Amino acid sequence: MNTFGRMFRIATWGESHGRGLGCVVDGCPPRLPLIAADIQHDLDRRRPGQSRLASPRQEPDRVEILSGVLGGETLGTPIGLLILNQDARPQDYTRFRDVYRPSHADFTQEAKYGIPAMTGGGRASARETVGRVAAGAVARKLLAVDHGIRIVAFVRRIHTLQAPVDPEAVTPEAVDASEVRCPHPETSRAMVEAVETVRTEGDSLGGIVECVVHGVPAGWGEPVFGKLEADLGSGMLSIPAAKGFEVGSGFSGVSLRGSEHNDPFVVRDGRVRTETNRSGGIQGGISNGETILFRVAFKPTSTIRKPQRTVNRRREEVTVEARGRHDPCVVPRAVPIVEAMAALVLADHALRHRGQTGRPGPAPDLI
Amino acid sequence: MNTFGRMFRIATWGESHGRGLGCVVDGCPPRLPLIAADIQHDLDRRRPGQSRLASPRQEPDRVEILSGVLGGETLGTPIGLLILNQDARPQDYTRFRDVYRPSHADFTQEAKYGIPAMTGGGRASARETVGRVAAGAVARKLLAVDHGIRIVAFVRRIHTLQAPVDPEAVTPEAVDASEVRCPHPETSRAMVEAVETVRTEGDSLGGIVECVVHGVPAGWGEPVFGKLEADLGSGMLSIPAAKGFEVGSGFSGVSLRGSEHNDPFVVRDGRVRTETNRSGGIQGGISNGETILFRVAFKPTSTIRKPQRTVNRRREEVTVEARGRHDPCVVPRAVPIVEAMAALVLADHALRHRGQTGRPGPAPDLI
Amino acid sequence: MNTFGRMFRIATWGESHGRGLGCVVDGCPPRLPLIAADIQHDLDRRRPGQSRLASPRQEPDRVEILSGVLGGETLGTPIGLLILNQDARPQDYTRFRDVYRPSHADFTQEAKYGIPAMTGGGRASARETVGRVAAGAVARKLLAVDHGIRIVAFVRRIHTLQAPVDPEAVTPEAVDASEVRCPHPETSRAMVEAVETVRTEGDSLGGIVECVVHGVPAGWGEPVFGKLEADLGSGMLSIPAAKGFEVGSGFSGVSLRGSEHNDPFVVRDGRVRTETNRSGGIQGGISNGETILFRVAFKPTSTIRKPQRTVNRRREEVTVEARGRHDPCVVPRAVPIVEAMAALVLADHALRHRGQTGRPGPAPDLI
Amino acid sequence: MNTFGRMFRIATWGESHGRGLGCVVDGCPPRLPLIAADIQHDLDRRRPGQSRLASPRQEPDRVEILSGVLGGETLGTPIGLLILNQDARPQDYTRFRDVYRPSHADFTQEAKYGIPAMTGGGRASARETVGRVAAGAVARKLLAVDHGIRIVAFVRRIHTLQAPVDPEAVTPEAVDASEVRCPHPETSRAMVEAVETVRTEGDSLGGIVECVVHGVPAGWGEPVFGKLEADLGSGMLSIPAAKGFEVGSGFSGVSLRGSEHNDPFVVRDGRVRTETNRSGGIQGGISNGETILFRVAFKPTSTIRKPQRTVNRRREEVTVEARGRHDPCVVPRAVPIVEAMAALVLADHALRHRGQTGRPGPAPDLI
Repeated sequence: MNTFGRMFRIATWGESHGRGLGCVVDGCPPRLPLIAADIQHDLDRRRPGQSRLASPRQEPDRVEILSGVLGGETLGTPIGLLILNQDARPQDYTRFRDVYRPSHADFTQEAKYGIPAMTGGGRASARETVGRVAAGAVARKLLAVDHGIRIVAFVRRIHTLQAPVDPEAVTPEAVDASEVRCPHPETSRAMVEAVETVRTEGDSLGGIVECVVHGVPAGWGEPVFGKLEADLGSGMLSIPAAKGFEVGSGFSGVSLRGSEHNDPFVVRDGRVRTETNRSGGIQGGISNGETILFRVAFKPTSTIRKPQRTVNRRREEVTVEARGRHDPCVVPRAVPIVEAMAALVLADHALRHRGQTGRPGPAPDLI
Repeated sequence: MNTFGRMFRIATWGESHGRGLGCVVDGCPPRLPLIAADIQHDLDRRRPGQSRLASPRQEPDRVEILSGVLGGETLGTPIGLLILNQDARPQDYTRFRDVYRPSHADFTQEAKYGIPAMTGGGRASARETVGRVAAGAVARKLLAVDHGIRIVAFVRRIHTLQAPVDPEAVTPEAVDASEVRCPHPETSRAMVEAVETVRTEGDSLGGIVECVVHGVPAGWGEPVFGKLEADLGSGMLSIPAAKGFEVGSGFSGVSLRGSEHNDPFVVRDGRVRTETNRSGGIQGGISNGETILFRVAFKPTSTIRKPQRTVNRRREEVTVEARGRHDPCVVPRAVPIVEAMAALVLADHALRHRGQTGRPGPAPDLI
Repeated sequence: MNTFGRMFRIATWGESHGRGLGCVVDGCPPRLPLIAADIQHDLDRRRPGQSRLASPRQEPDRVEILSGVLGGETLGTPIGLLILNQDARPQDYTRFRDVYRPSHADFTQEAKYGIPAMTGGGRASARETVGRVAAGAVARKLLAVDHGIRIVAFVRRIHTLQAPVDPEAVTPEAVDASEVRCPHPETSRAMVEAVETVRTEGDSLGGIVECVVHGVPAGWGEPVFGKLEADLGSGMLSIPAAKGFEVGSGFSGVSLRGSEHNDPFVVRDGRVRTETNRSGGIQGGISNGETILFRVAFKPTSTIRKPQRTVNRRREEVTVEARGRHDPCVVPRAVPIVEAMAALVLADHALRHRGQTGRPGPAPDLI
Repeated sequence: MNTFGRMFRIATWGESHGRGLGCVVDGCPPRLPLIAADIQHDLDRRRPGQSRLASPRQEPDRVEILSGVLGGETLGTPIGLLILNQDARPQDYTRFRDVYRPSHADFTQEAKYGIPAMTGGGRASARETVGRVAAGAVARKLLAVDHGIRIVAFVRRIHTLQAPVDPEAVTPEAVDASEVRCPHPETSRAMVEAVETVRTEGDSLGGIVECVVHGVPAGWGEPVFGKLEADLGSGMLSIPAAKGFEVGSGFSGVSLRGSEHNDPFVVRDGRVRTETNRSGGIQGGISNGETILFRVAFKPTSTIRKPQRTVNRRREEVTVEARGRHDPCVVPRAVPIVEAMAALVLADHALRHRGQTGRPGPAPDLI
């Protein structure tokens, strides 16, 4: 299953250390303005080697649009995207071919496919996300142009450092101004220091990415199995290292009573709004017109430079120690991936919504 | 979208206060022993009116198997399941038809479909889950008979009361012995008291259900978009009132370093095992043979008896106060629903796994 | 796979001689007028026992709408449809349980599922089509109300008797006025006689159903794998006993040269039209606004009363002779099934079309 | 919809005159031997410029495997295939941008997408089939290696010339020895002459491709909507210019009585076989272990050099005359495309079959 979405559908391919990676975007409507630079921007934000904090792997990750676009506009045909690998160093990984790295997918992939996990982790490598980020940029463009939707994710927390920011007020500029994509300068500085410390120690840290989606109209999503939060959750939990997802009040809402948790409806500028937003912009699986808010928990990177006990393919207990380049904290680079998956889910729902409710004649005059 | 699953697929139907509810199970393999009692057991655990704590609605919820089974065995044909409604009292709800109840789906469903949310919440009502629980019982039987898989969910937390139990040791008997499905007697008593208190106050509480799956072999799930945690998350977040999902260490894993979080591999009884289980039995989207562990956060029930500010369909700000029967805490009744969704996801992956890896000849001798 | 469609999706269930049959229609938009009589009309046309020519089985086939409709309008929720079996006579079939009836699915179903084909053919029985016809009636209503689309199928041929009619001029009334659903009275009389003859001889006949769809706008369908003819073909070839499908000129178009076959474009009433319609209303997989025309070939019924050589489950060569009720020619009863499948395919494409091209703002002003 | 298949799934992309074409094969099991030459062979048979009869366009169509294969074996990860365009001459087509070529998809694609049909027909061009043929070669390899399945298609008819051959005896060598892929030398010679004649006249011819699949075991396919003939029909009718599909006796079976048409079961070498094969190897949607036989009708190529009446985008009636390279008869080049689609459908069913019937323990000992 390397396919995601129903109406706005993507199929991704490519191994970490193979010839390249890419994606087919199938279902993007025609006449959408799109150029390579729209996609490159997000790829640049995802790629490693951007700061001393991240993996030193040097990959320009230049995207090439092979089909589906002509004269700067989509054709309605599938959009083929290609990103060639350049700095592949399989030798960094071959020495692990016989060893199951702890909390990596080496063992489980071999259990499934009967072959040793490939050099660089194959499709379990975070490099796999290049294809989705490229596709997500197309989805994001569709949402922006057609619906004025803006998606902003940021690092809310690294390890025990949590940023006290109002998510609704976060701007993309403030996020990208921080080396760790945390829009709160003071916390950002502390995070940078913490990441730097574990990097020198050969250890790693996890964190939480928060995502804010502005401008989704009321009515997207479906009541039972196509709930917006279920599809967002599915998308986010498909990101490598993601261990949790919550929308609106999430896990902390458990400590509230119903009378404290419910969002009162009010009328503002003639529109039905909620006074608070503990629902996170979604009620009963369907958007209510408020800002959509969710969080994704990422575990500390599995690759560390410290010696670890493990087992090899001959069932011998051994010690393993990483030497190749790696990120001590993937959370900042997860930000554009979270945004991409959010864009893919919402673009899909935008198209599904039209089909589901799609009868000619006057629409309901609710909102 | 009232369809869930790829190979083991269900389509559910039915409104809270219509003629009945049901499900079609499409893709269940043939020759599986199955009788109505297998399904009835889980329906009985889901249905309201079981204790003074839950909604007093009286629904026997008798399931009828209309097709797909003959002589106590499945035929490989679709299994039609029917549960007639008996205690429908639409009058309890008609007075809300003009009012958007706070944090219910009344407003969003109207925004989507252009009709007032139906009596009893239509498909947004928790009664919709009857069909999934029935289908889940079939999936659970398949997993038990063919793979020896056991699924046990329990209430880990209500409001601020958290039960200190070892999830691996929890038994179904201990769970069902508690009125609130919490297998820790002392915490259970405190929870009962807390629920009773908010019931008399007309308020409501949320909580956390934890789920343990024993016996899933290594190798189920897929590396990219068919990750086991993504499909489990999607299933859980499609349950009414669910606001969060986490697997293994989840959100709390964020506070650990990689060296603390990684699960060392060891050899036990000749098999590759992990010493700890912060991965929750899933690595890189694929089961590793350890117990699968996840948690689902449920918000406090939206229906409360206290007066609340809201808006009606004419855009007037009004006050609403529930009077019909309702649960002050749905978390105990969510337990069999969580188990059902887990069974549906895993049965689907059991069948998908065979297709994905499905080549004739000797299988890989890994495990 | 008892599921059909992407946006307008159905899941059918039920065995020929079980408790009943039915269908879940998932994805029908809200606020469509719908009552049971809309569905009953097509079920009545499908059911046996309507004339001396068909199977004498007496089944009232009363449909019950269990969900998804309130006050004569769809809700946007899944529509549960139930038809109880009444005249089940499994004893007519039990004597065949050990014998593979020639050209039935007894052998292949056992090869697949490892159980003897069920009494009455299980899901391979033509009775399975009850669920699709019921669902098709909903699709037909949607197409009629929202798009003014009319679907008319008729018997073009039985055995060697071919009706010389202009398909565009055929009316439903003319079709149903004929006992064999052939709108050409003289051919109809000859067909009745031919069917009567083989019935007394215990033999059977096949034939061709032709289908005409008026009113599909230009632009429905998709260029590559969602071609309208591919989806129509898939739907038609899923009808029991169907052996062939052709659109427009079909197999006979092979004998023409390109210069004879191409449909010249002309302008009529300001619209782009084709002068001829050898394309059958579809070009490159997409409707062109002309009448859609296709044909389905049905083999002679496999059940005959003549002694036939065959094999039993113990691999013994034996002779089998049917005694139960059966149709000597299913082609007339296939007419409403062809219409139902056409309606299901087109309703699905109506909804998909909106999603595929679905961008806000002014639509292309082509037509 | 540029996606095909459920378990063995492909997503194709690429325009006729864009940067290139390709395909993602998602779901191919691991450890299948596969090298580029396996794919190149079928691409070479599909590509134009092979004989004086076909389009003189020169495209080497070299396939590059970008992912999913290592050391000559599949990894279980998606297989990315790329074929760069080399001899694109958009100028041949630009002069048609304002004119709807008769029986092409120019008008319908514009009706759908609101943009003029692209240079060279975009995705409606037969060049689109490059991706499927590449993917089909992978499917074919899987079927051959794992199940010993052989697929042989050939030209049964061009225009009025029909080859009197026994399909079961046709070999790939005999097919490819003929310039028009007709394994009957005498008919082949006549066909070559006929095609040569219309080429000089600027006209075109259609024909029928017949396909024979050896070695499919009994039990593949599904009874209702996953019927093997429905999926094969869907695949074949998605090929450009296909207007009809029939399996086994097909349309001509209509002229037989049931007693003539039924295939008697016999026991041969201890296996259940049919004496005749009017069923075409499929009964009730499921393979019966006999050779699968079907035919596809292709209309005469729409592109002809004769002047034709048509309409332009300004709704003016004009005359159009093709000048670019084109095939006077695409039927010979359709042969590998038919084989590819057959392979894709059957590989998908091979994997689905395992999931559908997929229970551990002893399989039914039927065959």
